[in-house]
Amino acid sequence: MPRYDAPVRDMQFILHDVLSIQNYSNLPGFEDATPDLIDAILEESGKFAKEVLFPLNKVGDEQGCIRNADASVKTPDGFPEAYQQMVDNGWPLLGKSAEMGGQGLPYVVNMATSEMTSSANMAFAMYPGLTSGAFEALMAGGSDEQRAKYGPKMASGQWAGTMNLTEPQCGTDLGLIKTKAVPQADGSYKITGQKIWISGGEQDLTENIIHLVLARIEGAPEGIKGISLFVVPKYIVNDDGSLGDRNDASCGGLEEKMGIHGNATCVMNYDGATGWLVGEEHKGMRTMFVMMNEARLGVGMQGLSQAEVAYQNAVDFANDRLQGRSLKGALAPDKPADPVIVHPDVRRMLMDQKAFIEGARAFSYWTALHGDLHHKSPDEKVREKSGDYMALLTPVIKAFLTDRGFKMANEALQIHGGSGFTQEWGLEQFVRDCRITLIYEGTNGIQALDLVGRKLAANGGRAVFSYFAEIDDFVGNHEGNAELEPFIEGLKSAKAQLQDGTTWLMQNGMTDFNNAGAASADYLQLFGLTALAYMWAQMAQVAIEKKGNDPFYDDKILTGKYYIARVLPETASHLAKLKTGADLMMAMPADRF
Amino acid sequence: MPRYDAPVRDMQFILHDVLSIQNYSNLPGFEDATPDLIDAILEESGKFAKEVLFPLNKVGDEQGCIRNADASVKTPDGFPEAYQQMVDNGWPLLGKSAEMGGQGLPYVVNMATSEMTSSANMAFAMYPGLTSGAFEALMAGGSDEQRAKYGPKMASGQWAGTMNLTEPQCGTDLGLIKTKAVPQADGSYKITGQKIWISGGEQDLTENIIHLVLARIEGAPEGIKGISLFVVPKYIVNDDGSLGDRNDASCGGLEEKMGIHGNATCVMNYDGATGWLVGEEHKGMRTMFVMMNEARLGVGMQGLSQAEVAYQNAVDFANDRLQGRSLKGALAPDKPADPVIVHPDVRRMLMDQKAFIEGARAFSYWTALHGDLHHKSPDEKVREKSGDYMALLTPVIKAFLTDRGFKMANEALQIHGGSGFTQEWGLEQFVRDCRITLIYEGTNGIQALDLVGRKLAANGGRAVFSYFAEIDDFVGNHEGNAELEPFIEGLKSAKAQLQDGTTWLMQNGMTDFNNAGAASADYLQLFGLTALAYMWAQMAQVAIEKKGNDPFYDDKILTGKYYIARVLPETASHLAKLKTGADLMMAMPADRF
Repeated sequence: MPRYDAPVRDMQFILHDVLSIQNYSNLPGFEDATPDLIDAILEESGKFAKEVLFPLNKVGDEQGCIRNADASVKTPDGFPEAYQQMVDNGWPLLGKSAEMGGQGLPYVVNMATSEMTSSANMAFAMYPGLTSGAFEALMAGGSDEQRAKYGPKMASGQWAGTMNLTEPQCGTDLGLIKTKAVPQADGSYKITGQKIWISGGEQDLTENIIHLVLARIEGAPEGIKGISLFVVPKYIVNDDGSLGDRNDASCGGLEEKMGIHGNATCVMNYDGATGWLVGEEHKGMRTMFVMMNEARLGVGMQGLSQAEVAYQNAVDFANDRLQGRSLKGALAPDKPADPVIVHPDVRRMLMDQKAFIEGARAFSYWTALHGDLHHKSPDEKVREKSGDYMALLTPVIKAFLTDRGFKMANEALQIHGGSGFTQEWGLEQFVRDCRITLIYEGTNGIQALDLVGRKLAANGGRAVFSYFAEIDDFVGNHEGNAELEPFIEGLKSAKAQLQDGTTWLMQNGMTDFNNAGAASADYLQLFGLTALAYMWAQMAQVAIEKKGNDPFYDDKILTGKYYIARVLPETASHLAKLKTGADLMMAMPADRF
Repeated sequence: MPRYDAPVRDMQFILHDVLSIQNYSNLPGFEDATPDLIDAILEESGKFAKEVLFPLNKVGDEQGCIRNADASVKTPDGFPEAYQQMVDNGWPLLGKSAEMGGQGLPYVVNMATSEMTSSANMAFAMYPGLTSGAFEALMAGGSDEQRAKYGPKMASGQWAGTMNLTEPQCGTDLGLIKTKAVPQADGSYKITGQKIWISGGEQDLTENIIHLVLARIEGAPEGIKGISLFVVPKYIVNDDGSLGDRNDASCGGLEEKMGIHGNATCVMNYDGATGWLVGEEHKGMRTMFVMMNEARLGVGMQGLSQAEVAYQNAVDFANDRLQGRSLKGALAPDKPADPVIVHPDVRRMLMDQKAFIEGARAFSYWTALHGDLHHKSPDEKVREKSGDYMALLTPVIKAFLTDRGFKMANEALQIHGGSGFTQEWGLEQFVRDCRITLIYEGTNGIQALDLVGRKLAANGGRAVFSYFAEIDDFVGNHEGNAELEPFIEGLKSAKAQLQDGTTWLMQNGMTDFNNAGAASADYLQLFGLTALAYMWAQMAQVAIEKKGNDPFYDDKILTGKYYIARVLPETASHLAKLKTGADLMMAMPADRF
């Protein structure tokens, strides 16, 4: 019953018109990314998402994964075939480096195709998604030999990868990891311990699974400074690339979850499994963090992706469902009732979703482009600034896009009334699947703490001051543009509040760290709201220039104005809240709650 | 794994200290409701909820209901026995009139016991809940004969009742009902049609089910003015009270839902079933609306109830889960990590939940007391004012308590991190079960429209002006009380904003009804935030008077201060949003979304 159509035109607008990525053809990977090629990729990827992945979304939810008696795991019907088709089509290779057999296309283009895959089938998309994460970690931290041994087959998706961090007693606080690594005479390690919530820990999609496992080498220092990273393949890979012995790494059980049933969330038991150190001893977290920023951007995008697919179905429902009459008199007098889209409160929910989704998409692609620039720009200053932005904005994207994405998916469900609560219409699955995005890869509370505790203060606030200066420049360059005025005024006001909140944090968060923690969630929301205002101002400016007779651009301007008028006022309450400090929050004794 | 303990002390505080219901002993039903009796009822009801109903909550979610080949329905294991125990203990009779064999206790006391039942097992609680709704409708609209025939056994719960409104083509817009009623020579009617989403339409808990069915008598006027109400028993009741023939009313299927799996949500097929008119021809909606106000208060309370049980488990988790260290240095240095309750952002979520739950509970009980006064006060002016309040505040309670209840249940899940997403910990069930409360008995959008479109304007705004005057009186009486000052200041500010919004609506909603619709959701939130501020001011005033050395009262004052400082500032953004009007919301052509 539900549908998904990739929003190709919206993606093109951002990539070509707003970000003008064709102007970066001097950068490696961008030279081949002509507008025509990008358009072809978006079209084909959209088709694959719609025709192959989306039909399996409900199947995956209903069947879930099954662990067999021999500890093998069966994914939902159709998943193995779709996975094979994805590999055969070369989709995972788009963004991978040429060295590993990939096409080396810009990260920002990858964001668009990943959004489609996630909208169509988030549980499925996690298999290649986590593989890419593990691949990037191995590329960043692995030896040449490890990169050559595992890289090409992980890049193509022929082998999968997993990230093994969490244990029963530790999630956020990885310093508590107990999994042990015992050095062997041949340079390998024996890994023993239990990992939980391992996405794709076992499955029937790939012939091998390359587990990356955090563990503690015997005698390592206590806490986070004693954690090392290991590569532990399900099947040992021989020097000629063929598969050897089955390793002692097995799925001990599957988690029963609220959503993403199509993804196998495994308890993984390592019973003296053979592993090899990745990078240096006790420096495992360093490699992990490299990978984590991109993973977090990806999770933010998942929040957006569920809001998008939910929104599309809410639009259909609002246009199809006949119920009641317009408050101003019947608009479809020939029908028994008007479509519910005539009701302002249904409109409010649709416009809220649209304004969020389009703003959030622009924000995440814009940040992804900074990811490309950070790695590829020949200009050191650009590399530095873009790296600063990536670091600063990653927690904002992860938490703001998932918080709001979940809220918006819920609004789309709400537009469906009772139908939204039934499994038949699919909305409740989008909501359930989306719910995990507020939690994994660091809860949204951790993101907020990362923002105020590390990212703001880094290099004396260089990143945030540079971001503010960029907004000021934009405002200065466009003040006096009459059509852009509401955007400029909204952006100025929001940025002033964000600056006010930043100053408050710098003055009060240092003297009492609890003030920083107490303010963090509201500060992050204030940041996200302002960031989207900046994106809407940029989109509106482009749309005003381009509009001609194309209503597409009129709609962009209108949606942006709606965002400024009806969403952005939330900044004021977040600023007021964050300034109240920690005292009232921390006063009650813990045992009296 | 999860637990539920009835918050008896909090309920006592509201009933005895804040509402002082012992002062109403001159009213029928209240004379017997001594503090001792109420305490005994709360204790026993809490025990029943904890020991009998809560253990079946997860069972109900996992097993759901099953429709057998003969169209009978099996409820989850344990439900029939628990239901029988409930009837044997006489719980449903507490609030029913003496004439029907009940104890006639105040409605406000019933709210407390219903909250417990709903917290413990919302899907189960709906069976007696809907029965009570159908019972009240029959009492309000039925003939003496009908009241005598069905009343006592529905009052006790020996027979169940259902409400049959929705059809595939109509939910909100009941004017579209197609179910037909054809008059028979003996004064009965043959009812034919399909009803959907009928909670408890079929089950194995009771020997008979009394369906109340909205239908259109042949030749009735079009639309809502041609709808009549019928009583259609599953088994025809003979004049001597014994059960006769099986009626042609059967369950055609069960809905697959996001939550409340333990409640059988039925498609009901009426194939020439025998029914009898309740009240007058074509006036069915009038009786239905009598019942609907109380049902809507009950749904608001369900939102609160899921927030409460989720909160209790979040408190446990926050105290038990060791992860990370306090930002100000280890607080439990003897343990591998501090409990997560040391983290300000976890505190923020707990305090948000606590401040909402306690404020919302006071608000709903306070309104329920007005329900009692409306029906029972000897003073006509009191009856009028209380009736006004019930009408005005019902949509606020229904929508505000379910919106926020869902949000708070989600915060409780969030505190659990990854565990919150697993079925094992139970949080995700509370969230899923809670989700329906934003939809049924009129979506929250419909509530907002009811508030701005009907309730505000009724009798020239008498209800809202009377409510404002009461708040002004409270403020006037307590200004200068130093300890109460933050409450008085917060309340004054919120009330001023609510009044501002009300004036805006009166000026702009009449000239363009879409402005009223566009503002409705934010206006309702503004109203709810202000109403809770008023309740917190009342609770704080009582707590300041009583506190002595009892930390219970200190915690109340602290939680109230937190509400005023950290929740109430949201009023400003709702006021700003509602004043933007409908134009931006309505401008986009429907086919361009």
